Amino acid sequence: MENLTIRWEGDERGHAVLLDQTRLPVATAWLEVRSLEEMVQAIARLAVRGAPALGVAGAYGLVLGLQSAGTLGAADFLAHARIQAARLSAARPTAVNLPGALARSVRRAEREAASGKNARDLLRALLHEARALESAERAACERMGELGAALLADGAGVLTHCNAGALCTVGIGTALAPLYVAARQGKRLRVFADETRPLFQGARLTAWELARGGLDVTVIVDGAAASVLRAGWVQAVFVGADRIARNGDVANKIGTYPLAVLARRHGVPFYVVAPLSTLDPDCPDGAAIPIEERAASEVTHPLGVPAAPDNVRVFNPAFDVTPAELVSALVCERGVVHSPSEERLMALLEE
Amino acid sequence: MENLTIRWEGDERGHAVLLDQTRLPVATAWLEVRSLEEMVQAIARLAVRGAPALGVAGAYGLVLGLQSAGTLGAADFLAHARIQAARLSAARPTAVNLPGALARSVRRAEREAASGKNARDLLRALLHEARALESAERAACERMGELGAALLADGAGVLTHCNAGALCTVGIGTALAPLYVAARQGKRLRVFADETRPLFQGARLTAWELARGGLDVTVIVDGAAASVLRAGWVQAVFVGADRIARNGDVANKIGTYPLAVLARRHGVPFYVVAPLSTLDPDCPDGAAIPIEERAASEVTHPLGVPAAPDNVRVFNPAFDVTPAELVSALVCERGVVHSPSEERLMALLEE
Repeated sequence: MENLTIRWEGDERGHAVLLDQTRLPVATAWLEVRSLEEMVQAIARLAVRGAPALGVAGAYGLVLGLQSAGTLGAADFLAHARIQAARLSAARPTAVNLPGALARSVRRAEREAASGKNARDLLRALLHEARALESAERAACERMGELGAALLADGAGVLTHCNAGALCTVGIGTALAPLYVAARQGKRLRVFADETRPLFQGARLTAWELARGGLDVTVIVDGAAASVLRAGWVQAVFVGADRIARNGDVANKIGTYPLAVLARRHGVPFYVVAPLSTLDPDCPDGAAIPIEERAASEVTHPLGVPAAPDNVRVFNPAFDVTPAELVSALVCERGVVHSPSEERLMALLEE
Repeated sequence: MENLTIRWEGDERGHAVLLDQTRLPVATAWLEVRSLEEMVQAIARLAVRGAPALGVAGAYGLVLGLQSAGTLGAADFLAHARIQAARLSAARPTAVNLPGALARSVRRAEREAASGKNARDLLRALLHEARALESAERAACERMGELGAALLADGAGVLTHCNAGALCTVGIGTALAPLYVAARQGKRLRVFADETRPLFQGARLTAWELARGGLDVTVIVDGAAASVLRAGWVQAVFVGADRIARNGDVANKIGTYPLAVLARRHGVPFYVVAPLSTLDPDCPDGAAIPIEERAASEVTHPLGVPAAPDNVRVFNPAFDVTPAELVSALVCERGVVHSPSEERLMALLEE
């Protein structure tokens, strides 16, 4: 599968190209992003979204934000890089991949500067770093797909939420990667995709990419997931993550936590699939994860059409936190961590 | 509060007037319904909805369907009444109030015919029966409101789903009646209304009527209810019912069952508020309740706008079943039944 979300065109003076996911599934429109401001906008309005893809978008965004800094001294370039990284990082607060990728890029520039490189070299190094991240994330998707596919039997029903597929990564996805790999292996699956209010990523994106990949997908409203679990149609729940705390608590799209509670009630395993770039060892537990609250209009005006009285009060958190105790296993590129705990996750990072 | 949903104008040759709830909250439009066919359409497309209101709509619809039968013999009138009742009853399958009210009306006509009345008298009797049902349901709302309000402390947070308010009854509602009465008593409440996909009854109807009634209401997407419960902002969940089986299992709007599971997890009482007309003693348990499946377009085209790929598979059950064990209490016009069971519910019916 080609990279569906974001790619870089040209050398370090080039630009990023994004699939505008806000237009899917009605239109497949590519956006050329030529400045940091445009990247911040694209991230904030979810033209590019999903934790792993946000990391890559941030890394390319930083290159864009420093293209005009090629004539600065190295120290000034670094100072500017830190400012630009902070601007990109603020575009969305919950996914740790965005600040994580930016910190990685800034450290790379600092290392290169310490070895005497000039601003032009540093800019080139930042592009290399972004490309390396893209490759690493792409490879991580494949590996998560292989590990997760082993958890799926032929004929299994799978429930997923939001979009944790190719469209949230630069590869074959996180939570959907095991489905693509299992399908390649000849396993027949029946996938239920929560539509995922308020932004319908399940109906718009997951259904689109799974159907495109030849998988059997059925869209349901979020409130119907419990009925599907109760009917016995689901043998595994697969979701992604926006940030995983060191104790294993998982922030993911609003509506994930109730699925974990329901999966537990119905004896169905609840799998979180995410690359290590989504694990935040500096975050002790779910309570410390910043939860983005988004505009009321996402709730009151679904797809732009009014569905609530004018000026009604709205609470619109974009994410919720699933406690580690409800996670059957975390699937990452380094292995499957059953019953994730701080001890097990930190051991994984040290491998 | 005036009757917001349905009223009858004139004598037995008159017509019904409905608030077209599909237009709310954008427009407050009244529909004159002058034939049984129009009533079936209004019910099927949810211009009038909610179990208690459906019973009244059915009873008035039967009068409409027999207005041209005034010249028949009484036996032919009764035969025609049974056919018309079956047509109305088929408009929506889950709420028992619709077939229940129609059976009650047909029995009334049968009794009157047995005492020698002619077709014109029978038609008049059917209108009286419908009006009596309207009055009884209205009084039941008041009584449920008083009983339920006693379960609410000043300052409580309340979570509700779909619309179980004035707009689903001919009075002050079922699940929302306690909120209106508590507010009258000077209690300050904070109400969270699930928007309730696919048809947004929470955002469109509950938020509209609660704001109109001066209550503090916050709309959330269905997937955010778990976060609100986890935050400790909710001290009681109040929902209505479309049918209650004799063992206490409750069919209600899709998305109710997961709320019951989550309320249990968070130690929050889960109250079902419904008149006895919603209790179906002929239905042994939830598995025997017919669950209406509605058109895929409700899911794929929220408010008419496409949000999913063309021809995607959809599963769209309109209701789910909450097992009796998750119901803290049933509030009906005859009392509060804690931990409802077959024994307790049947004792209530025999009172």
